[in-house]
Amino acid sequence: MLYFEDFSPGRRFDYRPVQMRTADMIAFAKEFDPQPMHLDEEAGKGSILGGLSASGWHTSAIGMRMMIDAFLGNSSSQGSPGIDFMEWKKPVLAGDLLSGFSLVLESRQSKSKPAIGIVKFRNEIENQNGEAVAVSECSVMFRRRDAERRA
Amino acid sequence: MLYFEDFSPGRRFDYRPVQMRTADMIAFAKEFDPQPMHLDEEAGKGSILGGLSASGWHTSAIGMRMMIDAFLGNSSSQGSPGIDFMEWKKPVLAGDLLSGFSLVLESRQSKSKPAIGIVKFRNEIENQNGEAVAVSECSVMFRRRDAERRA
Repeated sequence: MLYFEDFSPGRRFDYRPVQMRTADMIAFAKEFDPQPMHLDEEAGKGSILGGLSASGWHTSAIGMRMMIDAFLGNSSSQGSPGIDFMEWKKPVLAGDLLSGFSLVLESRQSKSKPAIGIVKFRNEIENQNGEAVAVSECSVMFRRRDAERRA
Repeated sequence: MLYFEDFSPGRRFDYRPVQMRTADMIAFAKEFDPQPMHLDEEAGKGSILGGLSASGWHTSAIGMRMMIDAFLGNSSSQGSPGIDFMEWKKPVLAGDLLSGFSLVLESRQSKSKPAIGIVKFRNEIENQNGEAVAVSECSVMFRRRDAERRA
């Protein structure tokens, strides 16, 4: 179990690879982002994305799952107040094999809640060619290990 | 059909309301964000969110769909390079009725692509009590109407 104290700056958590399946991309797009380039191969080829491509929100949601599987799911996470930025840098195409990592940028104790610390991460998702497809930074709140002991 | 020229600063697009269903929230969380407060009522009540709550990514993806239905789906959108920021300000609980709007903050022609203009939006999602639950800013690329005419 990972607590606030375990997230020292520079620590890196690598993601388990995830393959992008056409059916999943279309299902997500139908529900949340029904634009032609996310729904149809021909429309994708005719767009600036160059093929059937995942909604940026789909890629971002998969990035969340990668974080859960890499470290958040086994941590004292209390959730996140939001995303500092999210850049969708390259199209994510059907068949792409995504991987990547979260890197601890900084960590600090909460001023208002002594049992909580706040950790800032840089998150990068790459495709099988090593190209960054989505880059983001966000903060996550974690319970402190020593607060747990005292409770 | 809305083109770049239609997005003048100050123009506002209101979202059609969307009700948050427990089953949808749990299905999204199982796939992308399997944390206890997004999966289970009791775990949600025991968390700082106060009840079974939607993954922030689910709320954000629904916001994308609200933008599509309000204006993007009937526009010359060429997609977005990313999100400037996304703040998850309040928990989104089962049964909440979400609405909100996108407001045009600024618009400018692309320097490198004369057929394209870039529009910056502020997007706010509110619950049934008028409280902002998610606030974001993002830029979207649109084809210009006059480029279309000349093509």
